[in-house]
Amino acid sequence: MPATEYIVDEPATYSDAVASSSDEELGSYVQNVGVHAKKPQFAPKKTASFESTPNKREHEEFFRAAVELLLKHAVFEGTDRKNSVLRYENPEELQQLFNFSVGSAPSTHDDLLDLLKDTIKYSVKTGHPYFVNQLFSAIDPYGLVGQWLTDALNPSVYTYEVSPVFSLMEEVVLREMRSIVGYEGGQGDGIFCPGGSMANGYAINCARHRLMPDIKTKGLHALPRLVLFTSEESHYSVMKLSSFMGLGSDNVYPISTDSRGKIIISHLREQVERALSEGATPFLVVATCGTTVMGAFDPLEEIADVCEQYQMWMHVDAAWGGGALMSKKHRGLLKGIERSDSVTWNPHKMLTAPQQCSTLLLRHEGILASSNSTNAAYLFQKDKFYDTKYDTGDKHIQCGRRADVLKFWFMWKAKGSSGFEKHVDKVFDNAKHFLDNVKGRPGFELVLDEPELTNICFWYIPPSLRDADRNDPEFKKKLHKVAPKMKEKMMKEGCMMVTYQAQKEHPNFFRIVFQSSGLEKADMIHFIEEFERLGKDL
Amino acid sequence: MPATEYIVDEPATYSDAVASSSDEELGSYVQNVGVHAKKPQFAPKKTASFESTPNKREHEEFFRAAVELLLKHAVFEGTDRKNSVLRYENPEELQQLFNFSVGSAPSTHDDLLDLLKDTIKYSVKTGHPYFVNQLFSAIDPYGLVGQWLTDALNPSVYTYEVSPVFSLMEEVVLREMRSIVGYEGGQGDGIFCPGGSMANGYAINCARHRLMPDIKTKGLHALPRLVLFTSEESHYSVMKLSSFMGLGSDNVYPISTDSRGKIIISHLREQVERALSEGATPFLVVATCGTTVMGAFDPLEEIADVCEQYQMWMHVDAAWGGGALMSKKHRGLLKGIERSDSVTWNPHKMLTAPQQCSTLLLRHEGILASSNSTNAAYLFQKDKFYDTKYDTGDKHIQCGRRADVLKFWFMWKAKGSSGFEKHVDKVFDNAKHFLDNVKGRPGFELVLDEPELTNICFWYIPPSLRDADRNDPEFKKKLHKVAPKMKEKMMKEGCMMVTYQAQKEHPNFFRIVFQSSGLEKADMIHFIEEFERLGKDL
Repeated sequence: MPATEYIVDEPATYSDAVASSSDEELGSYVQNVGVHAKKPQFAPKKTASFESTPNKREHEEFFRAAVELLLKHAVFEGTDRKNSVLRYENPEELQQLFNFSVGSAPSTHDDLLDLLKDTIKYSVKTGHPYFVNQLFSAIDPYGLVGQWLTDALNPSVYTYEVSPVFSLMEEVVLREMRSIVGYEGGQGDGIFCPGGSMANGYAINCARHRLMPDIKTKGLHALPRLVLFTSEESHYSVMKLSSFMGLGSDNVYPISTDSRGKIIISHLREQVERALSEGATPFLVVATCGTTVMGAFDPLEEIADVCEQYQMWMHVDAAWGGGALMSKKHRGLLKGIERSDSVTWNPHKMLTAPQQCSTLLLRHEGILASSNSTNAAYLFQKDKFYDTKYDTGDKHIQCGRRADVLKFWFMWKAKGSSGFEKHVDKVFDNAKHFLDNVKGRPGFELVLDEPELTNICFWYIPPSLRDADRNDPEFKKKLHKVAPKMKEKMMKEGCMMVTYQAQKEHPNFFRIVFQSSGLEKADMIHFIEEFERLGKDL
Repeated sequence: MPATEYIVDEPATYSDAVASSSDEELGSYVQNVGVHAKKPQFAPKKTASFESTPNKREHEEFFRAAVELLLKHAVFEGTDRKNSVLRYENPEELQQLFNFSVGSAPSTHDDLLDLLKDTIKYSVKTGHPYFVNQLFSAIDPYGLVGQWLTDALNPSVYTYEVSPVFSLMEEVVLREMRSIVGYEGGQGDGIFCPGGSMANGYAINCARHRLMPDIKTKGLHALPRLVLFTSEESHYSVMKLSSFMGLGSDNVYPISTDSRGKIIISHLREQVERALSEGATPFLVVATCGTTVMGAFDPLEEIADVCEQYQMWMHVDAAWGGGALMSKKHRGLLKGIERSDSVTWNPHKMLTAPQQCSTLLLRHEGILASSNSTNAAYLFQKDKFYDTKYDTGDKHIQCGRRADVLKFWFMWKAKGSSGFEKHVDKVFDNAKHFLDNVKGRPGFELVLDEPELTNICFWYIPPSLRDADRNDPEFKKKLHKVAPKMKEKMMKEGCMMVTYQAQKEHPNFFRIVFQSSGLEKADMIHFIEEFERLGKDL
């Protein structure tokens, strides 16, 4: 097996030797210049070539050098608690520091390696344990290897002939996920999508297709107004996709939530009745399992009852909370999900698959194809020599589509369902540990005393504000400015990343959010102490 | 630097040693069992752990072993002409041969490496020089390294705070692409999308938003019928997205094409007038630069005139042919593109960036944000400490979004625009060489004598059919069956992959399609001889 050393200091004439030599000649050249190895080793050509194929002689050492660099700086240093989460630069400064421009001339391999290093240096380490800013984090080692293989194979999943392994792999994984959701026998339909927003869009499309299949060909222009319902705290993609799909965001009726962030069922019923009284057609409820900010779970059983009564499609956006289904201890949070028509579930969130890994799961067999197919003859020929039911490309609205299944399947093989269960349980345990330790601690005030998921929303009240009257508008105004200031401080130090936002009557509060089972209870205490340190002088 | 050897045969007790030892103890353990190295080497733990963080001791050797395997089997063997393009198995057989199932128990690292090997073994090598089946091919070495880094950083591009490098990188690359398209000063808007279909969908949305911004909130239900126009040979995504977006596929008026596959302008004018006479609202023409089958370029100047006259949006789907813009010699094919309102251009096609790398480029600044924004307060806080104009996430309909820019930017840095130009010119030269050599050669009949792009459509007529009367319906029937049979043969041998389809009055014909500059003129002759070999006995 060749060594991994990257020969950066070979004499300049080497590349000339490469240009005109056979392998044997080069081997002896290398020996002549004093490199001793069982196999000849080749330095990278000084300048990148334009051809779009890897050439062992030119690229092998470059690949190895690049991978070494990735493993060292991005993977291991990037996830090491001793290092910072980011090295913050303002946009204007970064434009000066980083060589962004693309020009006419090619680069040398050395320059390219420097660019890789700079890309890592100035990027946020989203795999760092102290990156707890979004609904994704961590670098799962098996997920990353799966992703790297996906890239090396560069597949597009639409026909069995081009993607035999991934076509069948998707079927197996989607069936298993449907079983876990609770669809009988894992039957139904499903698709890997480029993100949960798109998955929600697919669901909206299937819902209206079942109601009025003519929309596919005739469009919406002559139809009654279609109305859907979702929590006022649901993900913004419901509104975005409704705009994009011609339904109009005004026809997404927001349903009020209770103090825990859950849909109020009586308000849902009222709004359905309101739509009916307006002559509109209610056709869909999008329930949320794990809202973006509060982590709330809508009451699925009661929503299912309403959907049955009014014959509406029930979609569950469990992009974030779906991972809890892997745990016997926590899957009760999604009780009733088995009564839904469709579910969005993103393994790239709670289960820490690399981005992107999003699925739409449906109870109804064949609904995606009937909603989306156009039967393009040049891709989905019916006179193929194998059973074309394995050509699934016509059921989605993308044409080329990445094999996002492989990384997740590979993680599943690595850890097993039992490993995913341990992962989920550990993440919930950590979140509880954080919660238990901020409760009653001076300076911490919870937005929600008993969050259901692993997002924890709280204010940090600096010592200077602790004695203020909580109902004083001045206090709220001052508190509103605390989180942005602390965020700025943590970004500039690079010590951690936690997001904040205002919501309803609440001034800016922090939302810390956990997905990585690489975190330990000690990390929870570390976060708490960091908040205290960053906020103590404000 | 550690060696890359993967110690697969360590004694079973080793993992026990790992579980309870310090680094120093392990080092001496390794020495005691007879492995001699400067640094202690660690065998992988036998069973994968569930934690979602890489751990140097557990994963470093596993990463290296996996990368060795990828480089050897997928990258170098997978692109070696001596090896086959695929090892074909029927779906039913593959389900037996490949261990797809996911279960409860975790796997060992050895098992996982075997699974990687099997995934490569049974996957189509889309980077192989003889994979000329789709509008993508090749494994670009710089593109692959860029992709691997993207994965190791696992970013999502929506805010500057989370993706500083990629947010700015997108701006630089998109501006440069707009300049190349010919938009003045590179001004305008743009976005990287998960595929050209989505890019076309974005364009449709911007077009109707400019016409009637209320659609975003009110929807289409009470509006006049909106009609768009596109070549009958355009990509099926125009129809799919029109369905998905509530316009209805019937409202995509197909425009007839001439014998070369180009839109007939008089028919376009007729259809616009027809829509007007029906009381509908024509709002958009989707021109194609590089049709999927024939590689035809629509006459952009004349389409621009029609669009100006009727005040319609002009979108150019140059997903496939856009790469020609990089070549002074070939960019004339897209003359008039600078008059368009928007362009779809997929670097993952002609420029062989890894999948997916698709862009939508727009002349109109700010149009994406005004079409798509919802101002979600929890992601796009306005009280951040940096200029939030760099937070671009609200202009797209995805929420999380992969940094598809990095691989392309890295290729651009590596090769320079001059390298892309050489690449494009070489691919065109190769295609011409293929064409020149099949012209007049017994058994080859061209569907199009002078294709404009690098797709070449032809029939292979086996010796047994060569004397038949070309107008005999029996001949057509027999010829229709030739391509599927030859395709089956080539798939089962694994010698190459070339697609076929019927179109209009034409029975099944082959479409060979070139993007890789790793191919040589000798390969063109090889393809021709392979067709002769595969078809000679039919």
